[in-house]
Amino acid sequence: MNYAARQKKLREYLVSARLDGLLISHLPNVRYLCGFTGSAGFLLLDEAGSVFFTDVRYDTQAHEEVKGAKVVVAKKAVLQGVAEWLKKRHKRARAWRLGLEAEHFTLADKKRLSDLLPATIRLKEAPAQVEKDRMVKDADELVRIRAAVNLGATLFDRALEVLRPGVKESEVAAAMEYAARQQGAAEMSFPTIIASGARSALPHGRASEQAIQPGAFVVCDFGAILEGYCSDQTRTVWVGAATDEARQAYEAVLEAQLAAIAAVRPGATVGEVDEAARNMLRKRGLGRYFTHSTGHGVGLEIHESPRVAHGQKEVLEPGMVITIEPGVYFPGKWGVRIEDMVAVTASGCDVLTPTSKDFTAV
Amino acid sequence: MNYAARQKKLREYLVSARLDGLLISHLPNVRYLCGFTGSAGFLLLDEAGSVFFTDVRYDTQAHEEVKGAKVVVAKKAVLQGVAEWLKKRHKRARAWRLGLEAEHFTLADKKRLSDLLPATIRLKEAPAQVEKDRMVKDADELVRIRAAVNLGATLFDRALEVLRPGVKESEVAAAMEYAARQQGAAEMSFPTIIASGARSALPHGRASEQAIQPGAFVVCDFGAILEGYCSDQTRTVWVGAATDEARQAYEAVLEAQLAAIAAVRPGATVGEVDEAARNMLRKRGLGRYFTHSTGHGVGLEIHESPRVAHGQKEVLEPGMVITIEPGVYFPGKWGVRIEDMVAVTASGCDVLTPTSKDFTAV
Repeated sequence: MNYAARQKKLREYLVSARLDGLLISHLPNVRYLCGFTGSAGFLLLDEAGSVFFTDVRYDTQAHEEVKGAKVVVAKKAVLQGVAEWLKKRHKRARAWRLGLEAEHFTLADKKRLSDLLPATIRLKEAPAQVEKDRMVKDADELVRIRAAVNLGATLFDRALEVLRPGVKESEVAAAMEYAARQQGAAEMSFPTIIASGARSALPHGRASEQAIQPGAFVVCDFGAILEGYCSDQTRTVWVGAATDEARQAYEAVLEAQLAAIAAVRPGATVGEVDEAARNMLRKRGLGRYFTHSTGHGVGLEIHESPRVAHGQKEVLEPGMVITIEPGVYFPGKWGVRIEDMVAVTASGCDVLTPTSKDFTAV
Repeated sequence: MNYAARQKKLREYLVSARLDGLLISHLPNVRYLCGFTGSAGFLLLDEAGSVFFTDVRYDTQAHEEVKGAKVVVAKKAVLQGVAEWLKKRHKRARAWRLGLEAEHFTLADKKRLSDLLPATIRLKEAPAQVEKDRMVKDADELVRIRAAVNLGATLFDRALEVLRPGVKESEVAAAMEYAARQQGAAEMSFPTIIASGARSALPHGRASEQAIQPGAFVVCDFGAILEGYCSDQTRTVWVGAATDEARQAYEAVLEAQLAAIAAVRPGATVGEVDEAARNMLRKRGLGRYFTHSTGHGVGLEIHESPRVAHGQKEVLEPGMVITIEPGVYFPGKWGVRIEDMVAVTASGCDVLTPTSKDFTAV
């Protein structure tokens, strides 16, 4: 990973934003900029360089992992270490503007920092610039994302081996998660969704102790984290003998998903991609059953910018990686969702998820 | 769970804190107060009652789960739904003080909310009152915590079946996590730590692809979440023929752990508990190798108040549940940690973790 280039880009941003320094507190941003993978750390950037602060638990790990920044191990709370370092460096009474990540920094931490710092250091609310930079993945990241997506796809194959009427949703999830671990995934991207029967109409139906029943769909929405990067995929299968209504709903969602994928290209807005899916379902009279947005960015985090949602103006660029996941949900009955990850290319997009989307009954 | 009593207690706090309302945004606090288990929601409390806000994805689930609050499903962003509801209710120009959870609310969300609200609604930074209430577990919670701890303990039995020289750390973690799922755990409390060889000297050495080597300890620190409540346990085993030095370090840590447990009783401060462990290791000349704090509260979250650390003044009360987990770490060589969960009783404490702490070599 080219941490130096990422930090350089952010340092250029500081100049344009009239900030003297920026304190990165959001851990995925810290990881993106300097490689630290632990659970406690701050990265401070200014024109002179970068300093990474952590606590004693991460002393060895930080020295091994952190690139492009001096490592400081705080003796007490990490934020206190940051404040002490800043105080020492800014003894002269020149005003100094320090940006805080407004989307992540808490009111209490701002107050603590403010109480510890001299008045010449002024705390400013900075926008989500690192998240903006992270939207466009570089070549190293795309390699890792493809590897995570391919691992993720094997988990659905595993699910199909286990998923039968009478089997608990949680047993399907357990088999998938075990397979993920065996292939080197550190953890799942999010709590695995295996939603059967009427639970398939819950867009976020985490695997429960409910046994899978025939006569409804099972929504399987899952992902694994491999070398820091998340995969995200949904497949929906019917249990038992399929009805015409089920097939029609499935085909409508698939058509909507393909229409949205066809709309992904550089220069298109994410709102247009959302509209492509929404419009197709509207034509089939299913518009009001598509209750969520079409997708989201994925990378070091499972939900990243951009939001692929109604009216959003973000313009797609090559290297962006997003999910395309329309669905329809009939409360008390069942639901269907189909989701792939796609990478924006120079002329359109690559569908990263290799799994078949043919209607499947088990 | 007695959600009504919890909300009533918080409502009494509002009066004493001179707040007209409190917006709960931290999801474990939301769950504690009204039972919602999803990933997007705010609970607004005022003297008139409670309102829970979520988005369309959680419409059905919120209506099923939420107790003691009216449910409002926001059409757009949830925070916008909160603002619109407040605006409608407070059309008259009476000043109204709304508390925000300062430890969790971000600078950006405060700005968004402030921009959406009339000037008569004043946003105030509120302290972590719900976390304070959550420190003392009620009888329902203690039942769930015991169940989670007992499930967690079986995972170490599973680890001992798998843990051998040549087996990868991640394979041990995979076997434990699969066993947790099979017993109904929704997920692990935190990324499983299986740290072998020199990695055992990293206090936070997540299971890696490294094969387990003889001649060092393996630190196994793990927990599972059952019905919302976390378990947390560490056992450390030697691989191969044990040296005297290894046995002595192990016995010293165990002695320190037992001394800290003996110090847990109502009226003692958490700093005294920490000192009991630290003092014992100091006597053995190992004080400087004990680099972290002695423990922390556990419940709906893996790390809760109080911090059982040097100089902390929090006074123990019956019903508090904390970990006791001293360790010593020799960088580049190996480390040892032993951790139980204990519940403070009327006269001392119950050690919840049932697993033997005898020195074990595999």
